[in-house]
Amino acid sequence: MKAVIVKKPGGPEQLEIVEMPTPKPKKGELLIKVQTAAINRTDIVTREGKAGYALNPILGVEIAGTVVETNGNETFSIGDRVMGLVNGGGYAEYAVMPADRAMKIPDSLSFEEATGIPEVFLTAYQTLYWIGKLQEQETVLIHAGASGVGTAAIQLAKKLSNAKVIVTAGSKRKLDFCREIGADVLINYKEQSFEEEVLKATNGHGADLILDFIGADYWEKNLASIKKEGRWVLIGILGGSEVEKMNLFSLMSKCVQITGTLLTPRSDEYKALLTKEFMETVAPYIERKEIMPVIDEAFPLDMVQKAHQYMEDNRNIGKIILKIN
Amino acid sequence: MKAVIVKKPGGPEQLEIVEMPTPKPKKGELLIKVQTAAINRTDIVTREGKAGYALNPILGVEIAGTVVETNGNETFSIGDRVMGLVNGGGYAEYAVMPADRAMKIPDSLSFEEATGIPEVFLTAYQTLYWIGKLQEQETVLIHAGASGVGTAAIQLAKKLSNAKVIVTAGSKRKLDFCREIGADVLINYKEQSFEEEVLKATNGHGADLILDFIGADYWEKNLASIKKEGRWVLIGILGGSEVEKMNLFSLMSKCVQITGTLLTPRSDEYKALLTKEFMETVAPYIERKEIMPVIDEAFPLDMVQKAHQYMEDNRNIGKIILKIN
Repeated sequence: MKAVIVKKPGGPEQLEIVEMPTPKPKKGELLIKVQTAAINRTDIVTREGKAGYALNPILGVEIAGTVVETNGNETFSIGDRVMGLVNGGGYAEYAVMPADRAMKIPDSLSFEEATGIPEVFLTAYQTLYWIGKLQEQETVLIHAGASGVGTAAIQLAKKLSNAKVIVTAGSKRKLDFCREIGADVLINYKEQSFEEEVLKATNGHGADLILDFIGADYWEKNLASIKKEGRWVLIGILGGSEVEKMNLFSLMSKCVQITGTLLTPRSDEYKALLTKEFMETVAPYIERKEIMPVIDEAFPLDMVQKAHQYMEDNRNIGKIILKIN
Repeated sequence: MKAVIVKKPGGPEQLEIVEMPTPKPKKGELLIKVQTAAINRTDIVTREGKAGYALNPILGVEIAGTVVETNGNETFSIGDRVMGLVNGGGYAEYAVMPADRAMKIPDSLSFEEATGIPEVFLTAYQTLYWIGKLQEQETVLIHAGASGVGTAAIQLAKKLSNAKVIVTAGSKRKLDFCREIGADVLINYKEQSFEEEVLKATNGHGADLILDFIGADYWEKNLASIKKEGRWVLIGILGGSEVEKMNLFSLMSKCVQITGTLLTPRSDEYKALLTKEFMETVAPYIERKEIMPVIDEAFPLDMVQKAHQYMEDNRNIGKIILKIN
């Protein structure tokens, strides 16, 4: 089968389509004929050789496709349309997926749309609720509001918790989109000082919760934007991973909680539990089209280098998809 | 009345005993004739002008003494021996204390011993349980094991949770003391590489919970010592507050939670709830002398400069007390 590997750690030019053996499902796994795979930031980190935990030579953690081998599992049948996270191996014609992580695709969604659900919605759900403990009507600051996780988080925070949603993004086009899907306060970080705007929008108190995809560049400003005893979830490092001179005393005097998280390196059991709770809670909203995946563009497999470059250029609103079969 | 103020931000030489008006209790407050006050790290930070939240010109957040005015409160009577936290104003002959934060002193404890309870035990309890979520038989790494909070945390983690307690300290004398009060694994940070010892003691997994009083100097080593998905509570900056080059990606890939905390700037309501839960849970152990405050030395009030210097010299095991009346 065709599959995408990394020749050596580096830029998009290191991605190569090669012939690899079709994987064999182990106990508890399904074999999926992959229709579409999503491009994720974690794929870029892996491509650059910066992820310590990549065990599969084939890139890709998120797919949609059809079941071609159930391997004895009784929940799924051959031909079922499923979406879900895989432990690498997603950029390929076939992939194996733990059955307890597979989600049946609602009839209303295409494969392309379905590929926009697992990583961003599970991450947003995990970040907002399991880690961020978002409560009804709290204020949440979501950076990179027009990103995949950003668009998922805006919708979840609004629909599930009626939160006050403050977003940052770098263009009017992106901010307009954030408003369409539910954001209340829109901040163009290129034109406005976001920490001042957050304080203005919260009577000087700051946000109860920050979803931070940016990291180092926003460190001080996030610290200024967060409420006393606020929660700050670090889920991305688009603005660099290295904070020069971090002052710990300010974390203490503001009693701030920072949690670093990634979904990919979590255990299979964790992902299965998260998938189950997510489907129970959110699938009804998706079926009613009150919550929808946001897809930016779909590239054919042989344009995988371009698809990575497109993500790194940071121009997308929502998910970037690879069409495989 | 006599009271200790700070002439201008600086060293112990800036402490001065002056004459100040006796404070008047507001609604919900008791007036206490102070017998003993404890020296706390937060007093030093305040003296240095680095604490943003100090509102009282008189230093001191922790006292033991007798009630001289109940101000209509019916839980306490004139003459009751009480211990507790105050919003500044502790290094003085009289101080006011919110009644819902006052704790009756068990008959078995002297005033000096009682002064060793509130700050360190409430902080240790808050840190281990409210923030650190310590579970039965988990592994906890406690830095500065012979410090006030350290000695309280060792006893609580052992008696309440049967935790595996790993401590660091800088001398055999301090480590021996930690063992006496319940520590399981003793690390002399001057002679051993503590992260290696922690990994050895945990089969390479790391500690579930770290109580960090050190801050910057131990940043990388704590990150190496913590278990994946571990909790790290930052409650002191003895080793500096500024981390040069903090790598955020490692927080994310290890899914670590860091919570900065101080007890002093928390709300009155928070302290009252904490006091109540602490007394219900821990007082029976104190009454049975299974858990005991650790007092290093008591200085007369006119040696307050020396008492601060003594704390900064880092030679004490347990609390340093000022004798006032």
